Amino acid sequence: MKKFINAPEALLAEALSGIAAAHPGLKVDVENKVISRRARRSGKVALVSGGGSGHEPLHGGFVGEGMLDAACPGEVFTSPVPGQMVAAAQAVDGGAGVLFIVKNYTGDVLNFRMAAELAAEEGIAVETALVDDDVAVQDSTWTAGRRGTGATVFVEKIAGALAERGAGLAAVAEIAKRVNAASRSFAVALTACTAPASGKPGFDLPEDEMEVGVGIHGEPGRRREKLRPAKEIVATALDAILADQPLTAGDETIVMVNGLGGTPLIELYVVFHEIAAALADKGVVIARNLVGNYVTSLDMAGVSLTVCKADADMLSLWDAPVNTPALRWGV
Amino acid sequence: MKKFINAPEALLAEALSGIAAAHPGLKVDVENKVISRRARRSGKVALVSGGGSGHEPLHGGFVGEGMLDAACPGEVFTSPVPGQMVAAAQAVDGGAGVLFIVKNYTGDVLNFRMAAELAAEEGIAVETALVDDDVAVQDSTWTAGRRGTGATVFVEKIAGALAERGAGLAAVAEIAKRVNAASRSFAVALTACTAPASGKPGFDLPEDEMEVGVGIHGEPGRRREKLRPAKEIVATALDAILADQPLTAGDETIVMVNGLGGTPLIELYVVFHEIAAALADKGVVIARNLVGNYVTSLDMAGVSLTVCKADADMLSLWDAPVNTPALRWGV
Repeated sequence: MKKFINAPEALLAEALSGIAAAHPGLKVDVENKVISRRARRSGKVALVSGGGSGHEPLHGGFVGEGMLDAACPGEVFTSPVPGQMVAAAQAVDGGAGVLFIVKNYTGDVLNFRMAAELAAEEGIAVETALVDDDVAVQDSTWTAGRRGTGATVFVEKIAGALAERGAGLAAVAEIAKRVNAASRSFAVALTACTAPASGKPGFDLPEDEMEVGVGIHGEPGRRREKLRPAKEIVATALDAILADQPLTAGDETIVMVNGLGGTPLIELYVVFHEIAAALADKGVVIARNLVGNYVTSLDMAGVSLTVCKADADMLSLWDAPVNTPALRWGV
Repeated sequence: MKKFINAPEALLAEALSGIAAAHPGLKVDVENKVISRRARRSGKVALVSGGGSGHEPLHGGFVGEGMLDAACPGEVFTSPVPGQMVAAAQAVDGGAGVLFIVKNYTGDVLNFRMAAELAAEEGIAVETALVDDDVAVQDSTWTAGRRGTGATVFVEKIAGALAERGAGLAAVAEIAKRVNAASRSFAVALTACTAPASGKPGFDLPEDEMEVGVGIHGEPGRRREKLRPAKEIVATALDAILADQPLTAGDETIVMVNGLGGTPLIELYVVFHEIAAALADKGVVIARNLVGNYVTSLDMAGVSLTVCKADADMLSLWDAPVNTPALRWGV
């Protein structure tokens, strides 16, 4: 295993310490494993997300003005525990309640559910928005129903902007759910990733094959296929997305071409070139976009596409100021 | 070779087309291979850089307000040609002259020199700032003298900010050279990268070894070594940097922990944790930092450290607004 780490068991604490050193605007509680904004905002709905590490910059890189109030990272590919989530909620609750944004993995779902009950006992109002945008498979290794992947970024950005504007908990939860419902993702892997604790690739993939519909922990997709040109890979991913959520000419979208950690940026731009051409052919408008590494799978060479059919509210909230390590504009 | 491309010979044009689609604020001349700001700025010194592709976001990702006016990318790991550089200079010259920022590789140096002569014949005043910050080796595969690597980001940001403030060509060139002179870099690779044209890894590296002092095209470093913990790797890199540019307690620095393309962000934060601790031990202040993929080597798993001993001018210019695909703040 080739990694810039000291020891697998020290990885999370040391990475958190590095985040603290790099981003003095954030508060990092290394012991409780909570990354949060420095100042509790009285009267503002607080957004809390979390999940296993290994998907950086998700979620810690999205903590800051206009997005998350706190993130609680678990060990690599392992759900955070309810105590962390409650600590995060307590650290940022400003009296207006907390929205938990939860990717649909069974461990995350159960632990956030327990955390919501514990937080409620502490007098904190909690709503939960589930993200389940990955159309590749219906059930998977660690998930009942669809997996939650790239749409998480859209949900956190847009709901975060609405909370920043002073909306109440119900409204913030509602738009989070609406963004998730409007978003679909599909991923393709060229290589497996290597989790530090196991030290070896999560699956075997022959030199001339790709995993079509892969999950962000390396969960199996729909099928193995021979490698194909980027144009055809994009067509496959987009077909899967559009089969589930048809788009028609004039529809406005937010599109993310996301690298899974080991894919060069120059390739992500080739992929964006192809998706832009394919959507233009259908008259679908890419109103906003992200191209880069946002929801990764450690060192996996792969790419995911996420398409959100965006209404005017979503686009306006997308454009609102955001100031986090991984997304920053308008500030 | 596993890549999201259509064909190696189409890669650059398609990536440029993707950049154009993703960043409507930029002007992308796919035929001449020039990425530039939309508006020529009359009376402002224009900054132009360029080099082989494969190092994204360098340089195209640094075009925009407060940084570069134009970038001219060559084919992967291949210098752009003088005609491109002249086209870039002509596209952005606002009458106050053009600064070429050139990484020290023989092809880049020769081609930018010829371009400077051609631009002068067109009546454009040109100054050149060479970047040669890599302390690993004195001469290398494609370089006489030190290679230019991570400091390019610092030079482009700081000189770009000074140009934005309205300084003249001599002053902008002077601070670019001063930033380069104050900066040192050192890189370690865990894997080779695979250039699309060759289709295979640039060198062989056993599963338990790393290349210490690697170049951004996979040029050999100082030695091969057995893999070591992140703490020891950082010590090696920092020792090499400080041997060349000693720092003493109270010195202020800008530090970049840069991923070479295939290294997960969580590992980069572990590396930053170690460098922050090591510099704190010496009383050296990290006044500003970047942690992420800024000067990559395609899919290489590796990391480079860049340390700039920054004066107050540099820090103030660092903080000035910047609005590019890869660096954005204050706007």
